[in-house]
Amino acid sequence: MGNTQVKEARKLSRRSERSERRLFLADGPKAVEGALGVPGCVVQVFATPAATEQYADLAAAAERWTLVDDRALASLSDSVNPAGVVALCRFLDRPLEHVLDGDPRLVAICADIRDPGNAGTVIRCADAAGADGVVFAGHSVDAYNPKTVRASVGSLFHLPVGVDPEPASAVRAAQAAGLVVLAADGAGEVDLDEAGDLLARPTAWLFGNEAWGLPAELAALADHRVRIPIHGRAESLNLSTAAALCLYASARAQRA
Amino acid sequence: MGNTQVKEARKLSRRSERSERRLFLADGPKAVEGALGVPGCVVQVFATPAATEQYADLAAAAERWTLVDDRALASLSDSVNPAGVVALCRFLDRPLEHVLDGDPRLVAICADIRDPGNAGTVIRCADAAGADGVVFAGHSVDAYNPKTVRASVGSLFHLPVGVDPEPASAVRAAQAAGLVVLAADGAGEVDLDEAGDLLARPTAWLFGNEAWGLPAELAALADHRVRIPIHGRAESLNLSTAAALCLYASARAQRA
Repeated sequence: MGNTQVKEARKLSRRSERSERRLFLADGPKAVEGALGVPGCVVQVFATPAATEQYADLAAAAERWTLVDDRALASLSDSVNPAGVVALCRFLDRPLEHVLDGDPRLVAICADIRDPGNAGTVIRCADAAGADGVVFAGHSVDAYNPKTVRASVGSLFHLPVGVDPEPASAVRAAQAAGLVVLAADGAGEVDLDEAGDLLARPTAWLFGNEAWGLPAELAALADHRVRIPIHGRAESLNLSTAAALCLYASARAQRA
Repeated sequence: MGNTQVKEARKLSRRSERSERRLFLADGPKAVEGALGVPGCVVQVFATPAATEQYADLAAAAERWTLVDDRALASLSDSVNPAGVVALCRFLDRPLEHVLDGDPRLVAICADIRDPGNAGTVIRCADAAGADGVVFAGHSVDAYNPKTVRASVGSLFHLPVGVDPEPASAVRAAQAAGLVVLAADGAGEVDLDEAGDLLARPTAWLFGNEAWGLPAELAALADHRVRIPIHGRAESLNLSTAAALCLYASARAQRA
């Protein structure tokens, strides 16, 4: 029943353990399916007998499929209702240059994003909007956090997700790669609805922290600062909502 | 120090207690500010001495401001880092007819939404998009759930939020009020980016459950079913992201 393996895998709930072993867990059928779609990513899949029956296609696709009991499986999942299948995955190494390779047209750069659910939702939305990659810069949440992996619903495995310790260097690298950098900024000088042709150009969107947004000096490095119009009395939008509106505005303009 | 009052207020973390007493808690300065802006809503504000100093404008605006210690305040908050101020509020009674009163141009109807954070984010986003109201229909989360109140960041107090036990009757009431009902549906026959003039009409958006979306018979009651284009490999968008894109598409078309 692979109990020693489960015990070792369970430790990956800690960021330090993930970083050291360069391994993480992908929980649930969507995530496991996504992980199996990336060559060399999955080390091993843990599954309950019931899930093995239910997800026979995944079991057929996995090289190592380890049966575990419900209790062992639950110990690998941070979900309230575990779906019964968890993949042990290798880090998807994506240096920033890799994300910016090959003439990207739409990239999201997240500076100091802290909420793992938000990070996963941004990845999922960037995927849906047809973006070429997502970069977590600065002191952002670990993209391999279980909540991030879950909220991305498989999209973590669909597009390159890079890391860069310095938001400013990520902005400069995007500009050097020919992208217009647009900072999402509630006080921006350009209205998203009036950005017109600007949005049709190859673009890197720059998003800031959930609580304090983008530091002024970082926003100043962007080519333009763009605000989402607020028509009612809300003071602002939450980060993943704002990212969705910006990324989809670009997708629409680039395809018009 | 109002310990009996704190003890009674603490019970409002339970939905049954809220429903019976028709009272709820609004946690944090944004929520308290919003609540104080609605005449007759706030019964009492609990605050620590530090928060009283920090939010002197709120203290000045409140009729009953009760000092409590950090521990008592924390017991009223489900936040990891309580901001030190919590308002005890009366339910904001909004029958559906009230929400649909006065020629609304943009309304969100949420059918069987279950995640309290999503519900709050939809309220915040509807407010930002200038919507006239939000309706929680069917077995939706309680709009007074602490997580919903928090995620709405004050917007719960900015626009009418109604309840209707029957999603189908909410749809018919919206149609009777002259609104075109558009169901957000991944398999919809209309592409959001190609909906054109349709979006400029007074609209009620209909959003379904996070996991299973809209039941077919409910989607069929809508005037049109609209899909958000998916350009990448994501299978779908999360509920609050989808709601943001739909509501802002209407706001844009109605103002064009």
